[in-house]
Amino acid sequence: MSVLKRPPRHYDYVDSGPAIYVDSFATIRRETALDGLPEGAPTVAVRMVHGTGQTDLVHDLVFHPDLVPAARAALEAGAPVLADAHMVASGVTRARLPKDNDVICLLRDPAVPSLARDWGTTRSAAAVSLWEPHLEGAVVAIGNAPTALFHLLEMLIDGAPRPAAIVGCPVGFIGAAESKDALASLAADHGIDVPFLTVRGRRGGSAMTASAVNALAQEAE
Amino acid sequence: MSVLKRPPRHYDYVDSGPAIYVDSFATIRRETALDGLPEGAPTVAVRMVHGTGQTDLVHDLVFHPDLVPAARAALEAGAPVLADAHMVASGVTRARLPKDNDVICLLRDPAVPSLARDWGTTRSAAAVSLWEPHLEGAVVAIGNAPTALFHLLEMLIDGAPRPAAIVGCPVGFIGAAESKDALASLAADHGIDVPFLTVRGRRGGSAMTASAVNALAQEAE
Repeated sequence: MSVLKRPPRHYDYVDSGPAIYVDSFATIRRETALDGLPEGAPTVAVRMVHGTGQTDLVHDLVFHPDLVPAARAALEAGAPVLADAHMVASGVTRARLPKDNDVICLLRDPAVPSLARDWGTTRSAAAVSLWEPHLEGAVVAIGNAPTALFHLLEMLIDGAPRPAAIVGCPVGFIGAAESKDALASLAADHGIDVPFLTVRGRRGGSAMTASAVNALAQEAE
Repeated sequence: MSVLKRPPRHYDYVDSGPAIYVDSFATIRRETALDGLPEGAPTVAVRMVHGTGQTDLVHDLVFHPDLVPAARAALEAGAPVLADAHMVASGVTRARLPKDNDVICLLRDPAVPSLARDWGTTRSAAAVSLWEPHLEGAVVAIGNAPTALFHLLEMLIDGAPRPAAIVGCPVGFIGAAESKDALASLAADHGIDVPFLTVRGRRGGSAMTASAVNALAQEAE
């Protein structure tokens, strides 16, 4: 690699990785209203804002009061992260996980296409049924498919093992907002009180969801 | 897998994957102003809106007039996609690529940490220098790091081989907007006219960037 050289600088920009993080988080804290969030939630909100570039995201976040301690304790106890999409799994920073936790996405499991076909649902939803052996005490991270979140809620209503926490932030125009409303009212509607984090409306996505998991994984920014 | 069953439905939602796509794209076209975009660009814009859940994204998109034909021709000729982050690479739908194109992310190349340290820059930027043998005629997809985009522009100013197209949509608070402004004015500032697609401001990210590549890969929605 000895022939490689850094090209001459033509632009004035911050090129230190740690400085970019520090400056980014300081900018976000300056511009974002974080009061009123439960304990531990501000650092999670900051990292989600960081992943999206949008300070107004905070207005749409809904934190269950126990979300941060429940998810962090689960990860510290070695619980796996169950992701609905490979992009979500890819965004989880392995070095931040406290117990070298498994990050599991079963979307490419060979059983998925036929289950989806037989059940008349999406592959994302069918893959969630394959989580069942891992579900008890896990941290769920749904950042793509509203159908995956609806399917998980229906499994829980049907008596499936309960995860320790659900980060449910699917994105989009068809069912996304409704699936997240259903998550937020799962305790009121069905008496199932699982700590959750969601974002109201159409916004969401794998980056935001992975950012939340990365913040939950460690208290340190 | 014979014991698995779909849990009983408790919510009313669209659970057909193809129907979700059709309904999503129709909703976006109904709510989004797509006139004035160059030929071929509306389907790219629709897919980027789909990946973010935000119709107002369109106002901030900047399409070089040749972006769509240049990127599509390159991919149809077998050009690789060069991604700055594994999340971007993970979001590229391989089945949409016309020539089973390589999707390359070199962030975990063993040379990267020492290059970043020696050069005093980020690993994302250092990894871009390793693209050089693949750069000529490639489709670049930068969705995470402003420093990667600045570094690429500095390589081009320094005489590096030119890619066929640059999708440059890094996200964030420190340098993101500035790096994208620099991309948009590369021809005016430095006489280097490479077809590009970017989004003004802080928004961006791996999902948006992968969505753009997925749209560029095929004309069909």
